[in-house]
Amino acid sequence: MHPLLADHRSEAARVLSEEVHAYYAGGAGGQVSTGDAEDAWLRLRLRPRVLRDVSHVDTAVTLLGTDLATPVLAGPTAAHGLAHADGESETARGVAAAGSLLVVSTRASQPLERIPAGPWWFQAYVVRDRQRTLDLVRRASDAGATAVVLTGDVPYLGNRPGASRLQLQVNAPDDGDVADPSAGLEVIGDLAAASGLPVLVKGVLRGDDAQVCLDAGAAGVVVSNHGGRQLDRAVPTVDVLAEVVEAVDGRGPVLVDGGLRSGLDVLCALALGADAVLLGRPVLWALAAGGAPAVQACLEALTADLSHVMGLAGARSTTELRPDLVSPRRA
Amino acid sequence: MHPLLADHRSEAARVLSEEVHAYYAGGAGGQVSTGDAEDAWLRLRLRPRVLRDVSHVDTAVTLLGTDLATPVLAGPTAAHGLAHADGESETARGVAAAGSLLVVSTRASQPLERIPAGPWWFQAYVVRDRQRTLDLVRRASDAGATAVVLTGDVPYLGNRPGASRLQLQVNAPDDGDVADPSAGLEVIGDLAAASGLPVLVKGVLRGDDAQVCLDAGAAGVVVSNHGGRQLDRAVPTVDVLAEVVEAVDGRGPVLVDGGLRSGLDVLCALALGADAVLLGRPVLWALAAGGAPAVQACLEALTADLSHVMGLAGARSTTELRPDLVSPRRA
Amino acid sequence: MHPLLADHRSEAARVLSEEVHAYYAGGAGGQVSTGDAEDAWLRLRLRPRVLRDVSHVDTAVTLLGTDLATPVLAGPTAAHGLAHADGESETARGVAAAGSLLVVSTRASQPLERIPAGPWWFQAYVVRDRQRTLDLVRRASDAGATAVVLTGDVPYLGNRPGASRLQLQVNAPDDGDVADPSAGLEVIGDLAAASGLPVLVKGVLRGDDAQVCLDAGAAGVVVSNHGGRQLDRAVPTVDVLAEVVEAVDGRGPVLVDGGLRSGLDVLCALALGADAVLLGRPVLWALAAGGAPAVQACLEALTADLSHVMGLAGARSTTELRPDLVSPRRA
Amino acid sequence: MHPLLADHRSEAARVLSEEVHAYYAGGAGGQVSTGDAEDAWLRLRLRPRVLRDVSHVDTAVTLLGTDLATPVLAGPTAAHGLAHADGESETARGVAAAGSLLVVSTRASQPLERIPAGPWWFQAYVVRDRQRTLDLVRRASDAGATAVVLTGDVPYLGNRPGASRLQLQVNAPDDGDVADPSAGLEVIGDLAAASGLPVLVKGVLRGDDAQVCLDAGAAGVVVSNHGGRQLDRAVPTVDVLAEVVEAVDGRGPVLVDGGLRSGLDVLCALALGADAVLLGRPVLWALAAGGAPAVQACLEALTADLSHVMGLAGARSTTELRPDLVSPRRA
Repeated sequence: MHPLLADHRSEAARVLSEEVHAYYAGGAGGQVSTGDAEDAWLRLRLRPRVLRDVSHVDTAVTLLGTDLATPVLAGPTAAHGLAHADGESETARGVAAAGSLLVVSTRASQPLERIPAGPWWFQAYVVRDRQRTLDLVRRASDAGATAVVLTGDVPYLGNRPGASRLQLQVNAPDDGDVADPSAGLEVIGDLAAASGLPVLVKGVLRGDDAQVCLDAGAAGVVVSNHGGRQLDRAVPTVDVLAEVVEAVDGRGPVLVDGGLRSGLDVLCALALGADAVLLGRPVLWALAAGGAPAVQACLEALTADLSHVMGLAGARSTTELRPDLVSPRRA
Repeated sequence: MHPLLADHRSEAARVLSEEVHAYYAGGAGGQVSTGDAEDAWLRLRLRPRVLRDVSHVDTAVTLLGTDLATPVLAGPTAAHGLAHADGESETARGVAAAGSLLVVSTRASQPLERIPAGPWWFQAYVVRDRQRTLDLVRRASDAGATAVVLTGDVPYLGNRPGASRLQLQVNAPDDGDVADPSAGLEVIGDLAAASGLPVLVKGVLRGDDAQVCLDAGAAGVVVSNHGGRQLDRAVPTVDVLAEVVEAVDGRGPVLVDGGLRSGLDVLCALALGADAVLLGRPVLWALAAGGAPAVQACLEALTADLSHVMGLAGARSTTELRPDLVSPRRA
Repeated sequence: MHPLLADHRSEAARVLSEEVHAYYAGGAGGQVSTGDAEDAWLRLRLRPRVLRDVSHVDTAVTLLGTDLATPVLAGPTAAHGLAHADGESETARGVAAAGSLLVVSTRASQPLERIPAGPWWFQAYVVRDRQRTLDLVRRASDAGATAVVLTGDVPYLGNRPGASRLQLQVNAPDDGDVADPSAGLEVIGDLAAASGLPVLVKGVLRGDDAQVCLDAGAAGVVVSNHGGRQLDRAVPTVDVLAEVVEAVDGRGPVLVDGGLRSGLDVLCALALGADAVLLGRPVLWALAAGGAPAVQACLEALTADLSHVMGLAGARSTTELRPDLVSPRRA
Repeated sequence: MHPLLADHRSEAARVLSEEVHAYYAGGAGGQVSTGDAEDAWLRLRLRPRVLRDVSHVDTAVTLLGTDLATPVLAGPTAAHGLAHADGESETARGVAAAGSLLVVSTRASQPLERIPAGPWWFQAYVVRDRQRTLDLVRRASDAGATAVVLTGDVPYLGNRPGASRLQLQVNAPDDGDVADPSAGLEVIGDLAAASGLPVLVKGVLRGDDAQVCLDAGAAGVVVSNHGGRQLDRAVPTVDVLAEVVEAVDGRGPVLVDGGLRSGLDVLCALALGADAVLLGRPVLWALAAGGAPAVQACLEALTADLSHVMGLAGARSTTELRPDLVSPRRA
């Protein structure tokens, strides 16, 4: 783990209430997937090249038409007000300052109109009152979101021992509308039509499922097991990333999250074909530890670290990061 | 392990005598197979699907013509009187209330006519007085059993260090008739003829062996290593389940036991082709901890857990659970 | 490990001097091979068959024309006088009483004419005075040995930290003749001619090497890494046994040693194609712990254990133990 | 690890300042590659041959026309003055006495004209003032170096936590010229032309990269991950050695470094196709522990150990060490 992230994590553990900290840290069931995530990236080894001119290393990417300084993005996490008084507004300032992009959660602590200060996408759940979801993504579009990230792996909440009361509070707000287990692939088209925005499906862990989503109108996918908070023992994202990339075959961007904690982790993800990565818990740690400046520092530190190891690996741009750069650790 | 099972296990350890507890827990030889069993299921990872309508998840199965609410069954274990004063009657009440099925052991603490309150099968050993075995399965048939589960892996008892005195008591009852090592495949047909019931062979750990049993008249097989209590270092059942399922090729039901402790374990077993699973020790823990209500709670909890994770995996019925849903953990 | 062997080991540790105990236990270099040996067998899992008539299980084998009650033999180890006042004579009595065979070491504490009480083979080193070796095997033949086991993996002694003084004493006796590093494959024929006996080469760890030895006149091979006392990090014998068996292709017996400690280990070795196994340290433990009766008990216990697990695996004779009975553990 | 190296390491830890010791020991990032290095060699197992005449075992090699008594060479490490008052001169005396070869670092504590007492090569970094590098290799050639080892994996320094102040001092000397990240493959030809010497590229970890270097004029390659001090999680050298050897296909020598600590490690490297190995930290430990005599003893001990295990493996010369001699450990 990058030392700055480790510092933020320690500081967050100090300043957050035990309940909030447990809510952030927890996973579903036996927490196998949550525990696997970081280790899974550490199982990869690198096969660098030597004597390439790396005087200029470029980490910039373009995602769905948006130019970004970095492929390290802030993923959707709920209720930033638990970590900082200014909630998502504070996060957004840090993200924008780093030249990155924020995915704002449906479960944000603030009205989405108040939040963003830079490029952002909107994360949507499908609730039982379908119209409500459609209205929400239209509102996000009006407020400036340039894409919808549709969470596909929450037909209902996973069992997460030890954080249930706060979880309930966050996930079943006053209006009481909850996730709709009957939501099917048709939702992708519905959200695209309602918002007029590209829709990425988050939670994809199979190549065939990625194709099904694209065929149903998705503009891209996010390889994710929801931080291990939904289906325990779901496969680590790194293990299926290449399969999904191959199946998507360039039809849209592939993003990935889950346990990425260093420039080396990001380099591995990009080498395996991801167009960008999403950080979940590290952004919350930073937000709790130091607000927008810490969020900015977190994203910039990982980006600088990525640039550093790209050069050491002989790669000058993210397009030079290809699968032959990584190989599994031998036991 | 599902939290309720863990609670039952703790409570059973509290209320049972040390001797009985050791008898339940023990395995053969170096106890390698006993120790492997639970871990073997944990080595599998899941590859769920997203955005499937899972508003209705159905765990019901039909086994040899019997409709059951759940594929989680109570396997044959000896001498329930050691765990509860009402012995197998108590177990049967809990199993029936859960809409499940009980496999009654030859070594039951009660006459089999007194026991069952719902669908049940009868587990048979082959003893040296062959006629005695034939009479027993006929008696079971008359009493309402709808299938015979023939234990195939006990030509004689495995060496189980540390539980020998009680084991002897349980397995060599007053009449003194013991297992018959000369029993061969012809026994399958003999028991079917005597009982007029379908006969499943329990203890199968190879595809070719499953075919040999079916060719000899078996109606199905139970993939089992006898809880590690017979041949130590016998392969974990999960490792051979797919091979057996492929070899059986739909000619009859394939059940599996050994270390299944959660809805995720059951989901994996069904995905690999099992038609149902048998619980051994967990039912005894429940019986000791709380009698029929606890047995019912145990089976219902695993069934609910199965339903929960099926939905999270995008599967609406057990027929949608296929091998591509699981993959081995990477090291 | 079989409980009786563990008891003998503990008792031997109690009664032997620290120096002798260290000499028995030690291996070469970092002692990797010595440490690997027992664990390597434990990595195998079994795939038993059910419902075979196993009322008669036969462990008898015939090796180079000699009928033996068991395939569990006593391998060549040096200087039994360190473990028991009566040295190899005592060992030989125990081995004969168990219906087994003893391989007497060149470094025996007693003249080979005094030792054997049953079927025995003679282990030969090649020393610098070649004639001396030839005279010795002729003497062994005259004294009743029915085969020569030529140690092929000692061109000189491996570096064994911590036991050097006693080792020197054992391996460089008064006459001072030491191992001849110039010994080549021609020695096989020379020893056969001098003794008129079949010659097995001990230390073979490769299929191609087995063929080379047979082509040079060997009557069989012993798969061995010398208990880890010669080339450290030599492959565990279990890992190359099948390769050697395939290469030998029935041209002569294949024996194996190294870390075999239970009936299950022996079953695995036979299933992988070994005709018999050699015990090294366990016989020394038994000899130190209780003389001939303990040696007999050790061999009989492993034989009984072998018979027991053969029956549980559905095998009636050693010829029914085939490679499909074992499979590697999955991690 | 060879006992003498372990002794030197302990003694070095005693006599060196904490800062220098940490500078030697440290690696980049999470120090994964540094930690992997020694263990990676220990994962190999050996498949020796028996009964070969090994009365004469020859460890001599010829590298780029230079005859050496041993394939165990002293690799380039910086600032020997930190370990011994006489710096590289002292090292060179020990290396020459052992019949080995020293690769002198650009960051040597002494002018390169003062240092060597035997065969030596010169290690070059490419600095921003390219002419300076060219002048330096010409100077090395004039002073008697017979080859240039071009470090290809330092476009800039890797992040090495905990040793930064001293590292800075060593790597950014008074003149302030630092590594040039714009250096490309053309440097190989430039250095060859300027020095009139063969140029080996150090840091190669891929077969295709080795070919690219040879095509650009390299005379050979050194498989190295810089002791884990540049790109953390770079693959262990042993894992890519065979790939590089196959790609080089005899067009020039292939050397390897990284975690080699015993004759068995060296034997494995040579069996996988390396022409020689480089020791890094062990030479520094020896230098600190006992100056030239200890350096000589270190190299001679590993050479004697290599000869010893070659004989035990049935190999008479380094040309008889081939890939079939090693196989991966089974888990």
